Amino acid sequence: MTLLVVGSVAFDTIETPFGKADRVLGGSATFFAYAASYFTKQRLVGIVGHDFPPEHLDELVERGVDISGLQVSKTGKTFHWTGRYEGDMNAAQTLGVSLNVLGEYKAAVPEGFRDSPYVFLANDHPKTQLDVLASVRGNPLSVADTRDFWISEEPELLAELLRRVDGLVLNEHEARLLTGTSNLVKAGRDVLARGPEWAVIKKGEHGALLFSSEGTFAIPACPLEVVRDPTGAGDAFAGGLMGYLASSGKRSLEAVRRGLTYGTVTASVAVEDFSVEPFRKVTKEQLNDRHDAFLKAIRF
Amino acid sequence: MTLLVVGSVAFDTIETPFGKADRVLGGSATFFAYAASYFTKQRLVGIVGHDFPPEHLDELVERGVDISGLQVSKTGKTFHWTGRYEGDMNAAQTLGVSLNVLGEYKAAVPEGFRDSPYVFLANDHPKTQLDVLASVRGNPLSVADTRDFWISEEPELLAELLRRVDGLVLNEHEARLLTGTSNLVKAGRDVLARGPEWAVIKKGEHGALLFSSEGTFAIPACPLEVVRDPTGAGDAFAGGLMGYLASSGKRSLEAVRRGLTYGTVTASVAVEDFSVEPFRKVTKEQLNDRHDAFLKAIRF
Repeated sequence: MTLLVVGSVAFDTIETPFGKADRVLGGSATFFAYAASYFTKQRLVGIVGHDFPPEHLDELVERGVDISGLQVSKTGKTFHWTGRYEGDMNAAQTLGVSLNVLGEYKAAVPEGFRDSPYVFLANDHPKTQLDVLASVRGNPLSVADTRDFWISEEPELLAELLRRVDGLVLNEHEARLLTGTSNLVKAGRDVLARGPEWAVIKKGEHGALLFSSEGTFAIPACPLEVVRDPTGAGDAFAGGLMGYLASSGKRSLEAVRRGLTYGTVTASVAVEDFSVEPFRKVTKEQLNDRHDAFLKAIRF
Repeated sequence: MTLLVVGSVAFDTIETPFGKADRVLGGSATFFAYAASYFTKQRLVGIVGHDFPPEHLDELVERGVDISGLQVSKTGKTFHWTGRYEGDMNAAQTLGVSLNVLGEYKAAVPEGFRDSPYVFLANDHPKTQLDVLASVRGNPLSVADTRDFWISEEPELLAELLRRVDGLVLNEHEARLLTGTSNLVKAGRDVLARGPEWAVIKKGEHGALLFSSEGTFAIPACPLEVVRDPTGAGDAFAGGLMGYLASSGKRSLEAVRRGLTYGTVTASVAVEDFSVEPFRKVTKEQLNDRHDAFLKAIRF
């Protein structure tokens, strides 16, 4: 089934202990879409500037992404994030943010996208996320991400969003900030009490925790020898999870659990090199092989 | 089958964000033995001082531990560690170490213990660990722990130990220090190249990694809402692992993998309260229930 993703398409300038990349393709919707493209057709809503290379658009289309909801500004420049990772690369240090076209933009879902049965709301103003959700017809499986800024600055709108979505995906820092508790199991249960049927707390190289009425599940990350750039890992995780769900046509908790194994694998692909480069190299067959190998590595 | 453990029996004085404990029962061999006691009979080699409460000895005996290899000094005091955990409690801060009877002591295995088919060498001088190992007859399954001090101060003797043991259990900090690499998957492979058939890198609340010729396995920790004192978790992990192996009579890599699930559960018991208090409350049946629940929580 078709999967709608609403989020940023961006340029990233990144430095890690393993190299540098200047103005490469990035953004939450981008990493999400590249990961989900192994599984399902997608619809993307977002905006880029006049400086955005057409070949990036072509590649999204080749990967089965309908980009008719992706505006191309004639006057503005593409959103540009500059960041650095040091040491164990667990946290990005933001060196610069040029909102550019994102500054005035408010995501809106085209009429033709409003019947999407699976919806992912990447990090955005919770008011925008709520409006997007309200514009989608029927009862889609809706999953949201957020970030520290909205947790601090828009707690009421975020609380409203949590009452509306089926699932929430957030990292451990965000989970602690949202719930005010440092213990992640308590934090996860607290998130559930705020509305969503399930929540995933992402712990980067340490895997993820899934919370639902079925209890708490723990999944490790893929054991990796090569991590060159963690940028986009969380979005690629969500993309693998949602891509699997959409492709299966399921939304049961059991399907979510299985989806986490795919999300873990697509996240492991994302971190192997800068930008979306690893996705250009890994075939669907190779991804399945990695998934098989991962399932073996976590079977006890 | 009988399991021999050689290590420290101590007093701990500990402060965590959740409370304080003064001169409570601690030590690597203690936590190991309490955890392993759910599975198998044991033999313990170590030393305590004249100030060591006899009821602690009685409790070890009640738990199936042969303490005829535990010396009780008539003149010296029991080894005493003072430490503190702050924030997320991932690392202990040592505030004081009184070696006391440990200062002059060198572990030696009594004649009656030398046929032990399973041997765990808790952290000690690698020369002592080597001597202990040499004194055990036959071909026991031998597993060692170590710590940063020996890695830095006795690299050659430690290298010799690694050539002799079947398994090594160490934490992520020690793995990085030993191998000089920050990536834990690389570090694990590097440890294997130094001798042992398998190695486990413990990551505390983030679980553990197992390395062997079968590849890399990743296991999460039990998702816990209550962690009052992490002291002894690593030793309790080793105790559950080795206890299971000894009780099964196996030493295959498959058995080691299964043992990790038991070690994870006994470690999760250890951290629930100070000292060995949680082991006094959790029955064998409850431990099995926790193990079942844990297997469900990591099944994808």
